[in-house]
Amino acid sequence: MSRRILVIGAAGMIGRKLVERLSKEAGTSLTLHDVVPFEGGRQSVVSDLSTAGEAEKLVAGRPDLIFHLAAVVSGEAEADFDKGYRVNLDGTRRLFEAIRKAGGDEAGSEAGSYRPRVVFTSSIAVFGAPFPEAIDDEFLGAPLTSYGTQKAICELLLSDYSRRGFFDGIGIRLPTICVRPGKPNKAASGFFSGIIREPLAGEEALLPVAETVRHWFASPRAAVGFLMHAAQLDSTKLGARRNLSMPGVSATVAEEIEALRRVAGADAVRRIRRQPDPAIERIVSGWPQNFDTRRALALGFRADSSFEEIIRIHLQDEVQKSPLPPRARA
Amino acid sequence: MSRRILVIGAAGMIGRKLVERLSKEAGTSLTLHDVVPFEGGRQSVVSDLSTAGEAEKLVAGRPDLIFHLAAVVSGEAEADFDKGYRVNLDGTRRLFEAIRKAGGDEAGSEAGSYRPRVVFTSSIAVFGAPFPEAIDDEFLGAPLTSYGTQKAICELLLSDYSRRGFFDGIGIRLPTICVRPGKPNKAASGFFSGIIREPLAGEEALLPVAETVRHWFASPRAAVGFLMHAAQLDSTKLGARRNLSMPGVSATVAEEIEALRRVAGADAVRRIRRQPDPAIERIVSGWPQNFDTRRALALGFRADSSFEEIIRIHLQDEVQKSPLPPRARA
Repeated sequence: MSRRILVIGAAGMIGRKLVERLSKEAGTSLTLHDVVPFEGGRQSVVSDLSTAGEAEKLVAGRPDLIFHLAAVVSGEAEADFDKGYRVNLDGTRRLFEAIRKAGGDEAGSEAGSYRPRVVFTSSIAVFGAPFPEAIDDEFLGAPLTSYGTQKAICELLLSDYSRRGFFDGIGIRLPTICVRPGKPNKAASGFFSGIIREPLAGEEALLPVAETVRHWFASPRAAVGFLMHAAQLDSTKLGARRNLSMPGVSATVAEEIEALRRVAGADAVRRIRRQPDPAIERIVSGWPQNFDTRRALALGFRADSSFEEIIRIHLQDEVQKSPLPPRARA
Repeated sequence: MSRRILVIGAAGMIGRKLVERLSKEAGTSLTLHDVVPFEGGRQSVVSDLSTAGEAEKLVAGRPDLIFHLAAVVSGEAEADFDKGYRVNLDGTRRLFEAIRKAGGDEAGSEAGSYRPRVVFTSSIAVFGAPFPEAIDDEFLGAPLTSYGTQKAICELLLSDYSRRGFFDGIGIRLPTICVRPGKPNKAASGFFSGIIREPLAGEEALLPVAETVRHWFASPRAAVGFLMHAAQLDSTKLGARRNLSMPGVSATVAEEIEALRRVAGADAVRRIRRQPDPAIERIVSGWPQNFDTRRALALGFRADSSFEEIIRIHLQDEVQKSPLPPRARA
């Protein structure tokens, strides 16, 4: 593991779990960044990455490894066009440019001496319907949201900056994270977690879509495992295509519910209340359902084994508050 | 055909031919733009689209139809990283933003009253090896040049701005244009045209690659036909995927030479001199060879019928200087 690590977006759900994991590594110096004030320890920086000059400050310490997790989420990027492009596209581009300039490439054509590993969290939102039965590694990126567009553009920049030798980048497209800890939120995808999390906590959850709806999931623990693996991967194995769909679990809502029954019994399942919402049905119908992630699997990325495991991880890491065990990697 | 038409990049090879074609349309008002001074008639504007404020001036007249052909070419975008991104990405984004703002979308979320058709010339450089036998409409964009990256990013922006209702965009990926008129140049692709153009003019041409090399071609006349068809297409037929690979002719160098023999005889063919260039061989080996463009064909875009027709068009439009006949459309 590298010594000087910068985590951008450290206050988010995945960011906090990643930092917890990185804190256990010996001999590392962690710098944590977010746009909102957060509990980050000694080397914490609060700033807006999309403001001129801020990326340069973050890169001035020449971190060997940079995790870039920061983003305005899908709903907000759709509601506020300017903010989405400013944060998700311009902020990322400023970071990439700051790294290039830190390497001495003022002239614009030659790679410099500084070439950190950059791990960027992209999203399956770079894909848009209609889909094949499983989205493989050669399927086009044709997003149907501004958020997905911004992530797809950053993927292209990451590949080009890596090809030019400005940094050593890898973009990982995270599945929908499930079970998300915390309170229910208004995100269209919220129910996928809600119908597990709330019943396990003895509370009622609303199910707005049909049980036949299928989607692509990874646990928070698997997501942290992807990030850790991406940080240490031999990038010569990637070739020019530096963005990868991460493996996951494809499950229908019915399969989610059946897994909940096996883990927590029929009482838990009875706390799910059907309340169809055509607006959410329509949004979700445009989302990916299944992937063929053979490149990521061949490179050693490992998903959860089943939706049941996803529920058990939630119980271990969130409900029982047991310490996060190190994730086994192939 | 719309009435107020803006052509950006009007001084380029395709731009000039498009303007010649548009000049024949009745009832149109043409505004021509380029970064270099050019012979453009009354309403000609010379400015740098990537400079703040210039795009707004171009859009102030609220053209109904905008052709955006301007770009720094592949070799220059590779040699000058900053210039390529400034012109090809930032210039295009400034244009798109100016259109959005002209429509009254200051707040950032709602489409305004001004919604012109925007026809953007993209490139098959958005694709990078390895390729399937024919690149279809669902193959991923994974460019291997900064130019291809910039075009791919503009395609994504065009789709998102169209989806949001800021304009009605269509991006067309042009094949390699052949036969390019004019003098031989240093572009790696130059020989594809040179081995036809020079022998037809009684001059020697160098062939730097093996005759088995296959590539994807369209005549300048076909390219203008694509642009005219894109300008009047019913865009509701496009759905969300607004970028299309244009049809073309897939031909090997051997097939090019055989077509030359049929059109101009063995004497012309003898003016091609083999002079292998490993650097050009290597560059060309990463380029697309063949496409399956069924979406564009279904939408009525029509390619040249053969490489022989491509040569005959060159003779008609450039050598014999006959007037450009209107292109038949399906």
